[in-house]
Amino acid sequence: MSGRYTLGRPGWAAEQQERASIMSLVVTGTVGIDTVVTPSGAHAEGVLGGSAAYFAAASSFYTPVRIVAVVGDDMPAEHRELLDRFPNVDASGLEVRAGSTTFRWGGKYLDNMDHRETLFTELGVLNDEPPRVPGPYADSQFVFLANTHPKIQLDMLGQFPQRRLAVADTMDLWIESARDELLELLTRVDGLVLNYDEAEQLSGKTNTVAAARHLLTLGPRFVVVKKGEHGCIFVHRDGIAAQPAYPAQEVLDPTGAGDAFAGAMMGHIAAGVLHGRVSDPSAFDTIRRALAHGTVVASFNIESFSLFRLASLTQEQLDRRFDEFVHMIDVL
Amino acid sequence: MSGRYTLGRPGWAAEQQERASIMSLVVTGTVGIDTVVTPSGAHAEGVLGGSAAYFAAASSFYTPVRIVAVVGDDMPAEHRELLDRFPNVDASGLEVRAGSTTFRWGGKYLDNMDHRETLFTELGVLNDEPPRVPGPYADSQFVFLANTHPKIQLDMLGQFPQRRLAVADTMDLWIESARDELLELLTRVDGLVLNYDEAEQLSGKTNTVAAARHLLTLGPRFVVVKKGEHGCIFVHRDGIAAQPAYPAQEVLDPTGAGDAFAGAMMGHIAAGVLHGRVSDPSAFDTIRRALAHGTVVASFNIESFSLFRLASLTQEQLDRRFDEFVHMIDVL
Repeated sequence: MSGRYTLGRPGWAAEQQERASIMSLVVTGTVGIDTVVTPSGAHAEGVLGGSAAYFAAASSFYTPVRIVAVVGDDMPAEHRELLDRFPNVDASGLEVRAGSTTFRWGGKYLDNMDHRETLFTELGVLNDEPPRVPGPYADSQFVFLANTHPKIQLDMLGQFPQRRLAVADTMDLWIESARDELLELLTRVDGLVLNYDEAEQLSGKTNTVAAARHLLTLGPRFVVVKKGEHGCIFVHRDGIAAQPAYPAQEVLDPTGAGDAFAGAMMGHIAAGVLHGRVSDPSAFDTIRRALAHGTVVASFNIESFSLFRLASLTQEQLDRRFDEFVHMIDVL
Repeated sequence: MSGRYTLGRPGWAAEQQERASIMSLVVTGTVGIDTVVTPSGAHAEGVLGGSAAYFAAASSFYTPVRIVAVVGDDMPAEHRELLDRFPNVDASGLEVRAGSTTFRWGGKYLDNMDHRETLFTELGVLNDEPPRVPGPYADSQFVFLANTHPKIQLDMLGQFPQRRLAVADTMDLWIESARDELLELLTRVDGLVLNYDEAEQLSGKTNTVAAARHLLTLGPRFVVVKKGEHGCIFVHRDGIAAQPAYPAQEVLDPTGAGDAFAGAMMGHIAAGVLHGRVSDPSAFDTIRRALAHGTVVASFNIESFSLFRLASLTQEQLDRRFDEFVHMIDVL
């Protein structure tokens, strides 16, 4: 197709391609350019962002991961290079659309990082047609549909006919403006990940557990309710679990924490299936165990802007904090 | 002293007195009469309340507990009978002051139970001198100073010279109006239990972990930051832990949840010492384990008004939910 080409990935060796094919975790979402202002006075201008970027970087600690997203040809080379620092990230599905501009978002965090206000949103290429899913990606078995219009999520979902686990995120905008399509999506995914206020909005219930339980009646087998610094509540047809966030003292930038959380969660599930530890990728215990990995990787993500902390994160650091977190939440 | 007498406790046998003396957990706080309005439309008028009542009822599932509090002679007999339904509660220290009126409080919960507004506060007997500590209570080893003016807390603390563990609660009012006395108190207790917004207010830090760490520099060996439906963060000189709340679907009345939480926590610690499982009552692991019991007992408390749910709670129900909670927060 004219006007489209994909980013080559020099370091992406044949062996990795094969592993990726076996694993076949894919995320559909955004890669964008973020500007973030924090209460500490520190700010970042024009850094790499977007749900698919955060998701992929986080999941890559567990398994190879494919990105389906689209940017304009104004995407700085350094942003692509940052993605390339994650060896398990296959960015060959990151479409660069000539003549289009990359999605840009600016946000300002208030007070204790609980709330943020949007400074600007320039949709750019997101106004055009969605990214093309590369042919080789069609065998993807683990699919994460990051937040976007549910019509696009439905369209993406249909392009992964071999999926064994499909999980979607959403947001207040679509709950208000595209409720019917969102409800249709809920009948076709295994899991839903969303913030607690969105769970309440979508369900009409003010209690988080009641809200999540109600959402189960709309289709999915499980719902993960994200509560930011307060952790998450996980409601599955077969049980309920809850988890605190990692008690972080230094939070520089919470942007992308939810996507990093979902990325590590999905990566851990996919890796569990690959290594034969997991037979049912959407079982209660499968997800329950994966959530802690989401929590720990997200706790690193918020220590810096963009993907900078994840890019320098070592497996040893990750393992150490995971063990620390397990001890922190142990009550026996 | 004229004008003072204490409630007799018909069912309080010699054997229980002896056990209570061995265990010697004591709570100083309020016993009052509450009116509570909830968003569901359900409301309770003139029911038994107060920090010491909730604390004692909760801790009594683990160990005998002594109450130091004062009420007026308008205290309804049924409220005393409700306290008497907890066999481990020694209410002989509940002073009934002739000619005084019992502390009355009315509150209304908003929306999703996160916030409440005070409808009225009638201090009554709390305007007079504090309750007298019965002579036999002087050997108490585990002391919980529920929220009141820190000057009174300091005075109470001095009356338990054999204490091995002293923990205090406080609130925004004293942080504002009695900061010096509160800071003095902090140098004399082992632990502090308070809400997260109060931790931020007292420390001047907006991050919960940073706030709690700062409070450690003011004296206590540990700080438990209560976050209501979001659980708690526990910061100790020897480590940090975090815990979600029990994911409750039906919350009728959150009143007293924090006191019930502290009660079961302290009760579990005291019982651990009695049974030889615990040698250091303020050690990191001692408190960490006790927190989960606080969480689970509090989760029952919020299912009804006043102490009604705790009064009907069986050991089997408590054990079952504790096991359920342990599984809910397990990530391995």
